[in-house]
Amino acid sequence: MIDLEILKELSLRTPTKIVLLVLDGLGGLPHPNTGQTELETAHKPNLDRLAAEGVCGLLVPVSSGITPGSGPGHLALFGYDPIRYTVGRGVLEALGLDFDLQDGDVAARCNYCTVDESGVITDRRAGRIPSEKNAELCRKLREIRIDGTEIFILPGKEHRFAAVFRGKGLGGEVADTDPQKVGLKPKEAVPLSPAGARTAEVINEFIARARAVLAGSHPANMILFRGISQRPNLPRMSEVFKLNPAAIASYPMYRGLAKLVGMKVLDTGSTFADELKTLGAHWAEHDYFYVHYKATDTAGEDGDFARKVHAIEEADALIPKILALNPDVLVVTGDHSTPAILKGHSWHPVPVVVHSKYCRKGGTKEFSEKACAGGSLGRIRAADLMPIAMANALKLEKFGA
Amino acid sequence: MIDLEILKELSLRTPTKIVLLVLDGLGGLPHPNTGQTELETAHKPNLDRLAAEGVCGLLVPVSSGITPGSGPGHLALFGYDPIRYTVGRGVLEALGLDFDLQDGDVAARCNYCTVDESGVITDRRAGRIPSEKNAELCRKLREIRIDGTEIFILPGKEHRFAAVFRGKGLGGEVADTDPQKVGLKPKEAVPLSPAGARTAEVINEFIARARAVLAGSHPANMILFRGISQRPNLPRMSEVFKLNPAAIASYPMYRGLAKLVGMKVLDTGSTFADELKTLGAHWAEHDYFYVHYKATDTAGEDGDFARKVHAIEEADALIPKILALNPDVLVVTGDHSTPAILKGHSWHPVPVVVHSKYCRKGGTKEFSEKACAGGSLGRIRAADLMPIAMANALKLEKFGA
Repeated sequence: MIDLEILKELSLRTPTKIVLLVLDGLGGLPHPNTGQTELETAHKPNLDRLAAEGVCGLLVPVSSGITPGSGPGHLALFGYDPIRYTVGRGVLEALGLDFDLQDGDVAARCNYCTVDESGVITDRRAGRIPSEKNAELCRKLREIRIDGTEIFILPGKEHRFAAVFRGKGLGGEVADTDPQKVGLKPKEAVPLSPAGARTAEVINEFIARARAVLAGSHPANMILFRGISQRPNLPRMSEVFKLNPAAIASYPMYRGLAKLVGMKVLDTGSTFADELKTLGAHWAEHDYFYVHYKATDTAGEDGDFARKVHAIEEADALIPKILALNPDVLVVTGDHSTPAILKGHSWHPVPVVVHSKYCRKGGTKEFSEKACAGGSLGRIRAADLMPIAMANALKLEKFGA
Repeated sequence: MIDLEILKELSLRTPTKIVLLVLDGLGGLPHPNTGQTELETAHKPNLDRLAAEGVCGLLVPVSSGITPGSGPGHLALFGYDPIRYTVGRGVLEALGLDFDLQDGDVAARCNYCTVDESGVITDRRAGRIPSEKNAELCRKLREIRIDGTEIFILPGKEHRFAAVFRGKGLGGEVADTDPQKVGLKPKEAVPLSPAGARTAEVINEFIARARAVLAGSHPANMILFRGISQRPNLPRMSEVFKLNPAAIASYPMYRGLAKLVGMKVLDTGSTFADELKTLGAHWAEHDYFYVHYKATDTAGEDGDFARKVHAIEEADALIPKILALNPDVLVVTGDHSTPAILKGHSWHPVPVVVHSKYCRKGGTKEFSEKACAGGSLGRIRAADLMPIAMANALKLEKFGA
C-alpha cells in the first residue's frame, strides 16, 4: 500500500470516469449441499462478461485472517489503510443520518432496549420497535437538557438512533455501555482516556435522565450506547486523488463513510434501480462514483443463501445500465465477505474485477471466488485497489524520473 | 502482517482446536533426473486429500529471497514477524535442553572442535564425538569458575553443547568465535555493543580455561561459541491469541522455540508415531498444538532426495491419526524449504494447506509446490498464517464497526 502523500503528488485531474460498485458482503462460502458459493450458484452473465473482459483478483480488506467491519472494509476500497485510519461507529451512524458532524462533536450509536424491574436487559433491541415509535421516543429524549452541552438525537431504523453531544471539554473516547448480552445491566459510561472524562459524565447523566423519560415506554424502556467517538481527520479524496467524487447509497452508514472522505452524497431512492437512475442523472457532474448495493450483505447476515444468490442476480441484471454510461473504469467488488453459512462478515478475501480499456485482461472465464483466486490481479490489499483504478483511468503520473 | 497488539484485542477464547503440523524443511526442488520435487515424487494420499478439501498456498517465511534459519521459520509460523522478533541460537539451544533460562542470562551454542598444535581448527565438529564423551567433557568444563559469574554447561548431542552465563553486568550480544571454516584459528569473543563488553571478557576467559582443561581430550580439544545471545521478551501466545498452546517436538531447538512463545512443551518420544500418541493423550487439555516432524529436514540437509521422499511418505501415512481427533483447523506446512539438491535450507516459499470447515477450498488437486503456487490462499507471509488459522477456528472478532 502506497502512502497517500505519494498518491497526492501523482494524481491528475482528467475527464475520465471511475465507477466503484460495492456489492456489500459479496464473497461467500460453498453451500454444504452443492459445494458452490453464492456467486458460483448465481446466474450472472454480466458479471461473468466483466470478468472475461477485465482483470480479476482477490482483495484482502484489512489483513490475512481479519474480518472487517463495514467501516474498515469501505475505507480500504476508497484507498485508505484501514488500520491507520479508523472511524468510530457512532461517527459513521451520525454522518449517515445526514447530521452535519463538526470537529469535537462526540457521536454514539444507540439502541433502545428492554430492561426488567431490576434494570437487567431482557432484549438488546427492544423487540425491534417500529421506526415511527422510535421517532416518537426520540422526540421525548430531545427534551433532556444538560448544562453546557448541546444534544442531538437522531432517530434511525427500528430500535436504532444516534446521539451527538456538542460542548466544551467533550473529548476522547468512551467505552460502550452495551454489555452485548442479555441478562446483564447496562454498563456505566467509562472514559478510555482522561480526555473522555467529561464526556462520560455527560453520557451517564443523559442515560439516567433517559431512563426516567422512558420508564413507561416498554419495551423501549432503556437505551444502550456503542461506538462513542469523534470524527477522525481523514484526508479528502479531492485532495489525495484530485477527484470530484459522489456516493450513491441508500443506507446511512455508507453515506456517512463517503462523507468522511469528502464525497458528495447524492439523494437517491432505496432500490438498486433507483441508485442507477441517480448515477445516470448525475453522470456529467462527477468523475468518481461509489455505488453501494446492500442486499447481498443483508441476505448473507440472515444466513439466507438463496436470497443472497438472488441479490447477486438482481445486481447483475442491472449492470448493463452502468456499462451504457461507458465509464472508463468499472470496478465491482465487496467491502468484505458475508458467507450465508457464517451468517456474518468473514475474513475471506473478496472477489474483484477491474474493467477498463487498459486493464490487461487475464482470461478469467467467470466471476467467482475460485476464478478470482486465479486471476491476473492476484491477491492484493483492498487499499491497493484505488491506485489501480486511478491508473486504469490514466489519472496517475509516473513515480520518479 | 497485522500487529500483535491488534490480534490481542480481536482474539477470543473458544473450545475449537488448531493443529499446526510442521514438516521441517518441507519445500523442495526437482530431482535433475525426473523433474519432480520430493513432494511431487512422494506417494502421499492423505496430504493430497487435505489439499483437495482445504485451501493451499505458499508461505514466504521471512521475505522474498531470504533463507530462514529454524528460529525465524518457526516464529513466523507462530504468528510473530521474524524480522521484528529475533532469537539468538544460543538461547534456543539452552531452552531446548530444558534449561530454565532467566532474564539477563547469556546463552551460547557451543561445539567441541579439533585444533592442531598451532591452534588451527582441523575439524569444527571434533569428529562428531559420541554424546557420552560429550557429557563427560562437559562435567570437566563445569569445574571452571569465574568470579561473579555462574556458569551452566549443558551437553547436547554428539559435539554440541550449550553454555549459559549468569551474573551482574552480562548483557548485550557477542560475535561468534566459530570462524565457520577449518584452517583458521577460533576467533576472540568480541562484543557487538558496549553492553556486551563484560560478557566477551567472561567468554574469552572461559575459553582460555577450557582449552587447558581439554588439552588432552583430542579430538575434542577446543570449543567454539556461536549464537551468543539473551532471551528476547516475546509476547506469549496465551496473551496474544488467548490460546492454551502445547508443543510436541522431540528435538531441543523446537521445544526451546515453543517455550519462548509460552507453549507448554509436552514430554514425547522420538518418533512421529510417539508424537501423535502424545497429541492424542493431551488432546483435551489444549486448544492449539504445534507438532514438529524433523525427518524431512534432516534428509534434505543430507542431500538425500530418496530419504526425504520417504520421510514425507512416513508423515503422510500417520496424518489420519490427526484427522481422527477431528481438529477444527489442521494446518500442514514447513518452517522453510530444504531441497535435497541444495543440501540445506533455501529461500523457496513453502507449501501450506489449511483444512477447516470454513477454509473456502480452492480446488487444488494435490499437495505440491506447483499446486500450492496456484492455490486460492495465494502467496502470503508465513506470519499471516496464524491469523488465518485463528479465523478458521472462529477465534477472531471483527475489526472495526
